Amino acid sequence: MIKVVILGQGMGASHFSVGVERIKVGEVEAYGVPLANYNLKYPISELEIVASYDVDENKIGKTIYRVAKELIGDYIPIPKTLEKIEVRRGIHLNSLSGMPVKACGLEESSSLSKAIDEILEEWKELKPDVILNTITTEYARPFRDVSELEEAIAEEKTSLLTATQVYAYIAYLYSREVKPIAFINAIPVPVANDPAFLNLCEKSGLVIFGDDCATGATPFTADLIEHMRERNRRVKHVLQLNIGGNTDFLALTDENRNKAKETTKSSVVEDILGYHVPTYIKPTGYLPPLGDKKFVSLHLEYVSFNGVVDEIVVNMRVNDSPALAGLLVDLARLGKIAVDSKVCGTVYEVNAFYMKKPGPPGSKAISKIVAFQRLLEWLKSIEGVKL
Amino acid sequence: MIKVVILGQGMGASHFSVGVERIKVGEVEAYGVPLANYNLKYPISELEIVASYDVDENKIGKTIYRVAKELIGDYIPIPKTLEKIEVRRGIHLNSLSGMPVKACGLEESSSLSKAIDEILEEWKELKPDVILNTITTEYARPFRDVSELEEAIAEEKTSLLTATQVYAYIAYLYSREVKPIAFINAIPVPVANDPAFLNLCEKSGLVIFGDDCATGATPFTADLIEHMRERNRRVKHVLQLNIGGNTDFLALTDENRNKAKETTKSSVVEDILGYHVPTYIKPTGYLPPLGDKKFVSLHLEYVSFNGVVDEIVVNMRVNDSPALAGLLVDLARLGKIAVDSKVCGTVYEVNAFYMKKPGPPGSKAISKIVAFQRLLEWLKSIEGVKL
Amino acid sequence: MIKVVILGQGMGASHFSVGVERIKVGEVEAYGVPLANYNLKYPISELEIVASYDVDENKIGKTIYRVAKELIGDYIPIPKTLEKIEVRRGIHLNSLSGMPVKACGLEESSSLSKAIDEILEEWKELKPDVILNTITTEYARPFRDVSELEEAIAEEKTSLLTATQVYAYIAYLYSREVKPIAFINAIPVPVANDPAFLNLCEKSGLVIFGDDCATGATPFTADLIEHMRERNRRVKHVLQLNIGGNTDFLALTDENRNKAKETTKSSVVEDILGYHVPTYIKPTGYLPPLGDKKFVSLHLEYVSFNGVVDEIVVNMRVNDSPALAGLLVDLARLGKIAVDSKVCGTVYEVNAFYMKKPGPPGSKAISKIVAFQRLLEWLKSIEGVKL
Amino acid sequence: MIKVVILGQGMGASHFSVGVERIKVGEVEAYGVPLANYNLKYPISELEIVASYDVDENKIGKTIYRVAKELIGDYIPIPKTLEKIEVRRGIHLNSLSGMPVKACGLEESSSLSKAIDEILEEWKELKPDVILNTITTEYARPFRDVSELEEAIAEEKTSLLTATQVYAYIAYLYSREVKPIAFINAIPVPVANDPAFLNLCEKSGLVIFGDDCATGATPFTADLIEHMRERNRRVKHVLQLNIGGNTDFLALTDENRNKAKETTKSSVVEDILGYHVPTYIKPTGYLPPLGDKKFVSLHLEYVSFNGVVDEIVVNMRVNDSPALAGLLVDLARLGKIAVDSKVCGTVYEVNAFYMKKPGPPGSKAISKIVAFQRLLEWLKSIEGVKL
Repeated sequence: MIKVVILGQGMGASHFSVGVERIKVGEVEAYGVPLANYNLKYPISELEIVASYDVDENKIGKTIYRVAKELIGDYIPIPKTLEKIEVRRGIHLNSLSGMPVKACGLEESSSLSKAIDEILEEWKELKPDVILNTITTEYARPFRDVSELEEAIAEEKTSLLTATQVYAYIAYLYSREVKPIAFINAIPVPVANDPAFLNLCEKSGLVIFGDDCATGATPFTADLIEHMRERNRRVKHVLQLNIGGNTDFLALTDENRNKAKETTKSSVVEDILGYHVPTYIKPTGYLPPLGDKKFVSLHLEYVSFNGVVDEIVVNMRVNDSPALAGLLVDLARLGKIAVDSKVCGTVYEVNAFYMKKPGPPGSKAISKIVAFQRLLEWLKSIEGVKL
Repeated sequence: MIKVVILGQGMGASHFSVGVERIKVGEVEAYGVPLANYNLKYPISELEIVASYDVDENKIGKTIYRVAKELIGDYIPIPKTLEKIEVRRGIHLNSLSGMPVKACGLEESSSLSKAIDEILEEWKELKPDVILNTITTEYARPFRDVSELEEAIAEEKTSLLTATQVYAYIAYLYSREVKPIAFINAIPVPVANDPAFLNLCEKSGLVIFGDDCATGATPFTADLIEHMRERNRRVKHVLQLNIGGNTDFLALTDENRNKAKETTKSSVVEDILGYHVPTYIKPTGYLPPLGDKKFVSLHLEYVSFNGVVDEIVVNMRVNDSPALAGLLVDLARLGKIAVDSKVCGTVYEVNAFYMKKPGPPGSKAISKIVAFQRLLEWLKSIEGVKL
Repeated sequence: MIKVVILGQGMGASHFSVGVERIKVGEVEAYGVPLANYNLKYPISELEIVASYDVDENKIGKTIYRVAKELIGDYIPIPKTLEKIEVRRGIHLNSLSGMPVKACGLEESSSLSKAIDEILEEWKELKPDVILNTITTEYARPFRDVSELEEAIAEEKTSLLTATQVYAYIAYLYSREVKPIAFINAIPVPVANDPAFLNLCEKSGLVIFGDDCATGATPFTADLIEHMRERNRRVKHVLQLNIGGNTDFLALTDENRNKAKETTKSSVVEDILGYHVPTYIKPTGYLPPLGDKKFVSLHLEYVSFNGVVDEIVVNMRVNDSPALAGLLVDLARLGKIAVDSKVCGTVYEVNAFYMKKPGPPGSKAISKIVAFQRLLEWLKSIEGVKL
Repeated sequence: MIKVVILGQGMGASHFSVGVERIKVGEVEAYGVPLANYNLKYPISELEIVASYDVDENKIGKTIYRVAKELIGDYIPIPKTLEKIEVRRGIHLNSLSGMPVKACGLEESSSLSKAIDEILEEWKELKPDVILNTITTEYARPFRDVSELEEAIAEEKTSLLTATQVYAYIAYLYSREVKPIAFINAIPVPVANDPAFLNLCEKSGLVIFGDDCATGATPFTADLIEHMRERNRRVKHVLQLNIGGNTDFLALTDENRNKAKETTKSSVVEDILGYHVPTYIKPTGYLPPLGDKKFVSLHLEYVSFNGVVDEIVVNMRVNDSPALAGLLVDLARLGKIAVDSKVCGTVYEVNAFYMKKPGPPGSKAISKIVAFQRLLEWLKSIEGVKL
């Protein structure tokens, strides 16, 4: 069994919760799970959600079943088995500020250190193997230095801290005091890209995968760019417009959050091609009727042989949250495998495929098809994992 | 120097001829040549066209310069250096039947065996290293058996033979009598996929690359499909419409030629995914104003996590002939490298990347990004080739 | 009440039958019905289906409810009220030849003249006001001359006749013997464009609307072309690719049927622009997984001010049969209004908006937006119709 | 002759200047000029540019020839006849603030009232018939009241004033003191939509056409929406993303300017459909390599008959400035015709077709195809204009 704690019971986490249960009983195939057909040590059926945290007053105290019913129940049947888990109150630190949501975190009624203690105690009881962080995108700076991070926490400098960073710190405390676990950071806050957190991994055996799960159009763009590179086509520009109607897009109408996202996307094209290309790649807007099925428009021009210019336009309608959920199904399992294998820190071979901004810091983005080959090789190299 | 003989002085061959000369003098970058930035034993400047064959009365006797001027001179400057080579009369065997072209082959004024002798004698004088076959798409069946092929030639059973097959046979004769060379088959006639020709390779040291150069939308589709496979997305259908205004599209309005093309494209999706997917992938129509810059529309639906359905539409405007020419620049050089390395027969690692229907017979199509990795590995393994 | 007889109980007729019943009880809005918000003399609730004819053995004898259940029941709820009408055996005349359907017409077990008599007798009992012809596209030539048409029927020259023409002839007989009715020809067989049938109208008061209901991409293209014309943009080419998975697309894989379709589409662009434009507009292919929701790709280039060239690409996913059904709801009502108003023959103002090949013969296609204005004016001019 | 003064010698004005000269000598056809084929009182050859104003130090003092050479000379031949006119210094009022341009207006070296006097004096000498305002988009509020406008000018309240408003005021002064002329406002500043300016028209005979010339995707969207309305399709949302690389898009990265643009676009959909539709229609971003040929992506979903949902995606590559120039060719001629006909104020029938935000205030947007019919009727109704 892989015991999973969810942070942020939004649409992505709901699709994860629901999809895993439906796969277990054979109600749906494991489509959208990259390694579903590879014989990993832990099959999908081993995943067991043991707790979920959120700060939205409208979710706290409800079962995952009920939250999922409200968020995705109009088009997906919700399994009754999700009635067992109630959403707990977690860390807020203003991660939802500006959103049309009544939010309150544990730390707001007492203090940050008490909130940390409380969650740590809960985890000591729950005995999780993996923490999945899927809270709403926040804007954060890396600490780089452990002492600065610990000082910020100790002195409750809440303006420097985000919920993600505090959760990752609790995962470190837990790893040190109880047993190493894996922290999967699906959002753009720098964790796998923050030397401070990688330092904490070394001290505790904590495994971190991150940052920013590679759903949506950016992995597609990466492979398209690789396709150009391998033909030595000179890319003149890349334009990728994204517009959606889910909470994530609403959150990204906030300039600061958007900036967090843009940073993780901007380097991909240049990393792969090795030269500067003018790009416009970012979440573009929020249009509620699109719901979770966002609209993507991608435009690209390149110079081919003999100086001629070709043009490609791609339009997509993509369900954002299930795509994330499918990756989380692998990441939770790979996290446990990494912990079992005494990996500590982060694993580039995992991040390069699953993440938009793969840690450790300084890593280059590579195309996803190439990254997939390296992921498989890494898996083969880990003792006990046969493919 | 790599001495190159061209078969079929159409738009693709004209772009090849012109582009190579322009690259030599630094007038254009070698964009569209996949291995341009890899340090191959033979740089592009080593390519030297020594002869060109065609059966179009409107081309025979003209210089390559003049033919290129007429075909692509309105948007590409044509180098004067191409005035040295005159287009010679080649084998026809009805390869242009039904096309709005006055065509006559060497064999029509005398006999097939005399035509073969004549060309063989010319090659003995020209001393080519590589034969590039870019004649108009023909419909042909593989011979499978050398004796049947030789019987068809001996008895002048012209209805069983195509120009491509006869040219490849001359390349065999030359390889056996003079020195091994490479025959690059850029069109869908089965040569690298015909056991008869691979058999002739063994007897003579001939190298064959083929069949059907992977330009246009099909390589893109292959990589898109690999992108799906690596996420375990269930592809519901693939639809790829191609419409263009060049001679190739005009030729493909002929049902039989179209069929030749469809066969090389149809298996790609299934080969990569490993399950049956309904597809509609074929040259769709001919619309003259599009010229060489064809229009492609690709549509694909897939099932993602939790059973949701996503959708991708791709539209391209792609210059067909320069794309082919860029690949030929590599293939000519790889052909010489293979000959130098005493490879005889065909090389899957080359074909898998450059061809739509990679030989030898029975080979599976793989995605182009994966094929590119294998191509690089093959190159590394060949003595004298450092990357 | 407007009593309606349906010819051809396929997807279009099923959507018509189902949609009208659902609108009557307020289950869906009358979206897709152009004149739904105009105060016509006959509201939609006045439509009453009194009979349906088909030649598919798998439909004959079943209720419309059951047929609709099988054809569209997986995504549309089918009203029980449709259990009252059973599909009757109609005229075949090979209209389904080549289709994967076991078909048999009334005339096959006896003779054509007996079949005509039988249906005429049924209609004399049913007292229809409107006949909706939605049978599968056939290839037919206009008769031009009444005597030739009557001779073909009298002498049972079945190779010259199609089911549509015979049905229209029965409508004439009925109009002459009982009372004028309206025959709505939703398919490309020339009826409103055949002088022979318009001649029969004069003799009997019959009203004919036709030919080929303007669903799908062609009306859109017409308005797009008008948009170009009104800016004096010079259209360089128009390319419209259609691919679908319903019976209609399967039928159009037959060259002859496709030709019937192409003819009605080809003239639109030229009629509107007044100069020749190279076009490629036709049903392109059949891909079953697309079902009734076809994929359309449209490409257009034009010269704008100062000689610059612009480009437009349109991609659509459109449900074909409901679009047709929405038009039929108006056409049935307009047919009755025309009969009430003693119109006899055809009405260009109706056809120009609702049809791809508007009769009478020699009529020009105009853009749909312009046609809509003329339709409204015609309606205003008819006594008793206030908008 | 129609004597034209240009305000803002940017890409649009350069295409206008160049295109008119090229049309005069038969070098290009008058494509992109809506009424080119209608027999207006003034043919295009009557247009004569007599002066041009700008505030960009890099343009002032140069000939139109030179400015055009720099802006569009790489792809359009520039006629020598444009060497006669030098760009003069005009009103700035911060209209270029924030742009990467060294700008200085007449009013900056003296005072606003002196600047107004100076330009008025120049016009008294030049005797223009039409003023074309094509300066960079500014953000402005309507004055509504003449006295407030005049007070702002008298007291040099420059923070309340924009260059457009001051230019329009000079046009009023000129009309009152010399003879009525036409002021064509091609940008989103409210002039034809400001009661204050329409009031000034009554006092002076000034004609104003405006506001915001309907180039680009919005007129297309209007006609697409009309296409939906006439089929009673329920539009679920409209999404229109625009990204370009010209100065206009650079200017619109400024939030305030963008807001000016959004306001003129937002109401179109609702005006035509008569119900609220969620929309996202605005300039989206700036990507220099796109140059003047912007990329547009439009997405629209609607409910059709029987509740089914269809989807349309449109992608365009459109040259922005020539499209504007083509409209200006008509607007200048229509302006003169209106003045000749003693129209004073604005003309809805002209604005509805040529403008995004047609004045007078309170006017509704209608589809362009319908507007074109009304434009033709208006033209017919004007004495002396036969079509």
